[in-house]
Amino acid sequence: MPAPELLYLLHGDPAELTETLAGMRSADVAEALRELPPAGAAKLLAALPFDLAVQVFDEPELERRYEMVQRMDTQAAAALIEAMSADQRADLFRELDADDRERLLGTLDDETRRVLTMLLRYPPDTAGGIMTTEALTIPADWSVDQSLAFITQVARSKETVYVAYIVDDDERLVGAVSLRQLMLADRALNVRDAGDRRAPIALPPRADREEVARVIAKYNLLAVPVVDADNHVLGIVTVDDVIDAIVREQTEDVQKFGGMEAIDAPYMDIGFGQMIRKRAPWLCALFLSEMLTATAMQHFEGEIERAALLAMFIPLVMSSGGNSGSQATSLIIRALALREIRLRDWWRIAVRELPTGLVLGTILGVIGFARILLWQQLGIYDYGTHHTLVALTVGFALVGIVTFGSLAGSMLPFVLRRLGFDPASASAPFVATLVDVTGLVIYFSVAWLVLRGTLL
Amino acid sequence: MPAPELLYLLHGDPAELTETLAGMRSADVAEALRELPPAGAAKLLAALPFDLAVQVFDEPELERRYEMVQRMDTQAAAALIEAMSADQRADLFRELDADDRERLLGTLDDETRRVLTMLLRYPPDTAGGIMTTEALTIPADWSVDQSLAFITQVARSKETVYVAYIVDDDERLVGAVSLRQLMLADRALNVRDAGDRRAPIALPPRADREEVARVIAKYNLLAVPVVDADNHVLGIVTVDDVIDAIVREQTEDVQKFGGMEAIDAPYMDIGFGQMIRKRAPWLCALFLSEMLTATAMQHFEGEIERAALLAMFIPLVMSSGGNSGSQATSLIIRALALREIRLRDWWRIAVRELPTGLVLGTILGVIGFARILLWQQLGIYDYGTHHTLVALTVGFALVGIVTFGSLAGSMLPFVLRRLGFDPASASAPFVATLVDVTGLVIYFSVAWLVLRGTLL
Repeated sequence: MPAPELLYLLHGDPAELTETLAGMRSADVAEALRELPPAGAAKLLAALPFDLAVQVFDEPELERRYEMVQRMDTQAAAALIEAMSADQRADLFRELDADDRERLLGTLDDETRRVLTMLLRYPPDTAGGIMTTEALTIPADWSVDQSLAFITQVARSKETVYVAYIVDDDERLVGAVSLRQLMLADRALNVRDAGDRRAPIALPPRADREEVARVIAKYNLLAVPVVDADNHVLGIVTVDDVIDAIVREQTEDVQKFGGMEAIDAPYMDIGFGQMIRKRAPWLCALFLSEMLTATAMQHFEGEIERAALLAMFIPLVMSSGGNSGSQATSLIIRALALREIRLRDWWRIAVRELPTGLVLGTILGVIGFARILLWQQLGIYDYGTHHTLVALTVGFALVGIVTFGSLAGSMLPFVLRRLGFDPASASAPFVATLVDVTGLVIYFSVAWLVLRGTLL
Repeated sequence: MPAPELLYLLHGDPAELTETLAGMRSADVAEALRELPPAGAAKLLAALPFDLAVQVFDEPELERRYEMVQRMDTQAAAALIEAMSADQRADLFRELDADDRERLLGTLDDETRRVLTMLLRYPPDTAGGIMTTEALTIPADWSVDQSLAFITQVARSKETVYVAYIVDDDERLVGAVSLRQLMLADRALNVRDAGDRRAPIALPPRADREEVARVIAKYNLLAVPVVDADNHVLGIVTVDDVIDAIVREQTEDVQKFGGMEAIDAPYMDIGFGQMIRKRAPWLCALFLSEMLTATAMQHFEGEIERAALLAMFIPLVMSSGGNSGSQATSLIIRALALREIRLRDWWRIAVRELPTGLVLGTILGVIGFARILLWQQLGIYDYGTHHTLVALTVGFALVGIVTFGSLAGSMLPFVLRRLGFDPASASAPFVATLVDVTGLVIYFSVAWLVLRGTLL
């Protein structure tokens, strides 16, 4: 249902509106509301049956919830916030400004406020930051029958009922049992004997959200518990929260790879000023470092004056170095992210990239060499009497530059990781700068060796 | 447990080996086996209790399963393959060479072979290619009580029991019901009244795996059914298969973004020849298109001869255009992938990127202008009598090139998508080439306008 029709319904018959919306899924309602101005969305939300309004408000797809909250009266906003799930509530509060936060925190009941304050302590890209507190815990001395009865009873209020965590008298995590295991087990059995006898998989709240995703994917879990240092269950991260986290991480990586600060909002929602602030600093940093190319070129002004011909191939050899570097970087960044290779493997990569770069460079070198001679033969362009030497210069320079590009491109992610940076962030543009400057030096050095006494 | 210790256990006491492995999760055993040579892994797999061996063999993390199969006798391999899940079996057969495929297909029972042949018909990046056929279906005239009893009975053999699909007499999908809904419902109720009354969410087998991931993430599903044109359930894609698919897609995107063909294997497992074959074609294609820069430069040889100074700033202005283009491209690729913007929105992007590029270009232009004058003033380098004009040339060229880069970078993904290509594939390197060639033309045109009558 497109947003304009929803708006029309909003001003028409309330019964018709309710009927239409009752046939829609909450994620679809959220998506439609996204297209409305916040004031209209807030109004529509208020007109929905409360249960549906809560479901819609709980959808991360809704976006800009904080703007809607600003436009609701405190009473209505508080009711919605009290009813939403703990992790979404924390996300909302992260976006609120200090005033709204203060105003709404006062209206929450004590327990909700306590949980919220706890969740807000964790950065949003950690297990603690994406977990919810509605975990299903079962005392270790219960039977399977008791556990199943309990699960049926609480099924309405828990984020997931398909896995339960078994805790001892001190509320410490001692096991996990899936609903499937409970259904298959003898009803009289102790719950610990129905579940997995191995120590349960759990993560600390500071674990990176990428680590959470890896654990859930590796062990095919529906949820992973988050525990404190004493093994008390703080909450769970469910598989659907992990998918959201992976997708968000992916977006950040692509943007960092493109050489800019990550933007945590849809493209069309970013203001002009914000867009400039996210892009200009990186662009300027890269510009300042690329100024080194001008400095390098200053040393070769004499060569260019003597042989302007040489300048002609600068863009070509520079870009080839950049391209080979960017191939190598993207391969290594990804392999590091997937834990296929570790920091200490750097030399194994180096001994692979060196011959790879040599072969790739030789291929390009031969093409470049042939191109120049061919143009000369066909009379398309006249590279002068020393055209063979010029072609040799370009060919050998390409071998050197592509080899250096592959090696530098594969090693830089290790260096960045070693220095404590995220290798995805700006590896590619940094490689480009490094390879550009070195490429110029390689090119003119080769030229000097090959053309000394003739053109130079 | 590190692989060498496993290998030691393999040659030691079988009871000790079994005991050690019984305490490990199948994903961890698979990970350990990955480090062994295929022959050793096959031997260890044969020594495991059959149930555990099947679980381990079912883990996608195991990798190179086809090499292990080659090293097992047909009998043992057939037993494992018969027992594994349908989607993993199809993945394995995709990797087998024709001989092994033929040999093993003959040993499978008719039903297994029929399902396998059906799954192999679908490309591996579609819903059909990642689905499994072990869907839980329930006749529409059953009661909640009947359904729960049936689910308990089949819980051992189905991929997921947490969602069941309701089918009519002709086996057409008419609804979906979650185990949670069944547990909460009155036992005497008809199963259709316990579940969702809306039409169930389903996908055709040809749906892209990215589309599957989006649907599962949006509606927070544990699985999505795959149906044919007549609405018959062909299989289901579960949330853990989707996570694997997202991660694989992400890897391909990063590699394509880096300007190479996607590699569907860990970095260290790729042979030298294969590595060259994946990287050389792209590098050559980019090299050939970058040759246009040499062609463009030929037209400006006269200018360079008269003012070698101009050549000095070529790398700097070219790379700035490339960087601004790559920022814009990565933003738009991601926004398109997340469906934040659509193809028809191209002009809305264009009217945003034009002023953004102008502002970014002006910032860099001012820095570039100031840098040249500063170096001149400080006596670091002498740009000659016309240094102010040179600085102006660089400054204005940067405004033009960064603006063009932002615009070209944001529009190219649309063009690629419109032509039916994946915008992620090679957008970034193509933008670089396009911006490099145009950047040279802009730079020398500005130079001609500013320096005519003085340096040129």
